[in-house]
Amino acid sequence: MDIQEKFNLITRNLQEIITKDELEELLKTKKELSVYWGTMPTGSISIAYFFPMLKIADFLKAGLKVKILIADLHAALDGVPFDLLEKRTAYYKRAIILILETIGVDIKKLEFVRGRDFQLNGKYFEDVLKLAMVSNVRNCKKAASEVVKMAENPLLGNLIYPIMQALDEEYLQVDIQYGGLDQRKVMVYARENLPKIGYKPRIELITPMIRGLIGEKMSSSIESTKIDLLDDENTLRRKINKAECIEGNPNNGIMSLLKYLIMVLKEDAKESFIVERPEKFGGTVEYSSYEEIEDDFVSKRLHPLDLKNAVAKELNTLLERIRNDKELLDIHKKAYE
Amino acid sequence: MDIQEKFNLITRNLQEIITKDELEELLKTKKELSVYWGTMPTGSISIAYFFPMLKIADFLKAGLKVKILIADLHAALDGVPFDLLEKRTAYYKRAIILILETIGVDIKKLEFVRGRDFQLNGKYFEDVLKLAMVSNVRNCKKAASEVVKMAENPLLGNLIYPIMQALDEEYLQVDIQYGGLDQRKVMVYARENLPKIGYKPRIELITPMIRGLIGEKMSSSIESTKIDLLDDENTLRRKINKAECIEGNPNNGIMSLLKYLIMVLKEDAKESFIVERPEKFGGTVEYSSYEEIEDDFVSKRLHPLDLKNAVAKELNTLLERIRNDKELLDIHKKAYE
Repeated sequence: MDIQEKFNLITRNLQEIITKDELEELLKTKKELSVYWGTMPTGSISIAYFFPMLKIADFLKAGLKVKILIADLHAALDGVPFDLLEKRTAYYKRAIILILETIGVDIKKLEFVRGRDFQLNGKYFEDVLKLAMVSNVRNCKKAASEVVKMAENPLLGNLIYPIMQALDEEYLQVDIQYGGLDQRKVMVYARENLPKIGYKPRIELITPMIRGLIGEKMSSSIESTKIDLLDDENTLRRKINKAECIEGNPNNGIMSLLKYLIMVLKEDAKESFIVERPEKFGGTVEYSSYEEIEDDFVSKRLHPLDLKNAVAKELNTLLERIRNDKELLDIHKKAYE
Repeated sequence: MDIQEKFNLITRNLQEIITKDELEELLKTKKELSVYWGTMPTGSISIAYFFPMLKIADFLKAGLKVKILIADLHAALDGVPFDLLEKRTAYYKRAIILILETIGVDIKKLEFVRGRDFQLNGKYFEDVLKLAMVSNVRNCKKAASEVVKMAENPLLGNLIYPIMQALDEEYLQVDIQYGGLDQRKVMVYARENLPKIGYKPRIELITPMIRGLIGEKMSSSIESTKIDLLDDENTLRRKINKAECIEGNPNNGIMSLLKYLIMVLKEDAKESFIVERPEKFGGTVEYSSYEEIEDDFVSKRLHPLDLKNAVAKELNTLLERIRNDKELLDIHKKAYE
């Protein structure tokens, strides 16, 4: 794979690259680039976790070294009780592994890291204090605003959150951080502040936010906006049926699932997406790209109901192995009882 | 020494005990009580440091185990550059030892601890995060308000300061913290919050603030308000001469020095305080207690000028060994160049 191909694969479906020049330069000059994606083990995992995992598959294909951080202490700074962190971490790790296996990623090729394994370290803590002396309340509040649930008068832990996320880039020894658009302010904070305590700024790769089934965002606290990994077939079908999806308007969560998940998998596997319909409604139709689906949907040749049925079927197939994993079910129960 | 005598010695010249009942109870039930006094290595040390050292002498006489914390990381959280901490710490330790030796304390009987030696520890850091999740910005701002220089929009480090001071009580494994009235809010914060993360609240012993030579407080940033340990004889005499000291009014820094320093030393040594005066102004007079001096001063039988001369003489004698200590001079130069 040449540098241009690598660049294209690394950046496909991204919303923003900070900065494009730095990434191109690094691809030219450094042999093995490394990237981390972090997640805090808070609520039960939704199908949205497939999106970053597909990106991680891209990174691996492009030859990047990938680290997945399960940021347990960050979860605590977002309100998860300290004594639940271990159970939540176990659940997150198993769920992420199952997602990766479902989409065909060899998990031996990546590294799992738990936050507390490198963050509870004297040098790290001293660096927290150093960043805390170049960051005021307003800076930290802004940086954390889209990643932490915060009151007007925030808990101090909420404000330590972005400081630790910045340091993770350094302590995980990576060139790149990858995350969702909600991470953008923390990422910018990291780039601005790491150099003040003697560390180099990292490249930030930002993925667009995936729309919820209802409303703008998949909310971990609103059940109907998201599909849980462990939702059974009927629940999934019911949620898809209730999802917002106005005929002719492609701005909805169903289309996001098609664009960023189903069709990425289909195209990579050189398979097509099949919508089964009775003859009287046009008969069964096959799509080999997202664009074709969107065209038909916008021109109302594809009805929301038919689309939803086909999407529900695909997702149910995708989640089959995960929702039947005994280990995951067991850990999940302990983590959320 | 019986329990009542111990109690009296431990609490003499204190402003407040939180709580008296807890101290009495502990004296009855525990064999060897331990106490810590902490100081952050910031500015050059003033003569005010003699006051807590006299109290430490009391603690040792009462059989307490005493730890002196040189809180280097706290100094950083109050704005001392991280790369100066080591030099400042060395200077503080040497200066404190010299003060203790000057007032006749056997330094082998107490323990010096540097903050970073136990604070840069994984468990400590996790406890910082735990306290940071039960403390909001307002709590921490209030707790730190009299010990840290803070802007309206404080640095995050300023707010981590009281959290760490609270944990020090636990990690130094002491029963009691001793400090000045300016520490009161941090101490109350510690008592209220340690139990929230499973630790017991400590007894807090609070010493009154000593008036400055000019103004209410000895300010480390205003030279004329305080006498530096290293001031030479003439500088000291000049500062004492310029000090506020209105005839007949005992509310001033000179009287504080007499009450809390000079006369404590004199009484313990069973010596008297001598004011030399020409015959025409009443002749030389000797005092064996602070009360006698205050009586004469209030009734204007003792003139400020004569009192100042005698006080300057005493202080110059007291500081003689310290200001000539080659090691201290050398370290001081490095710490503040």
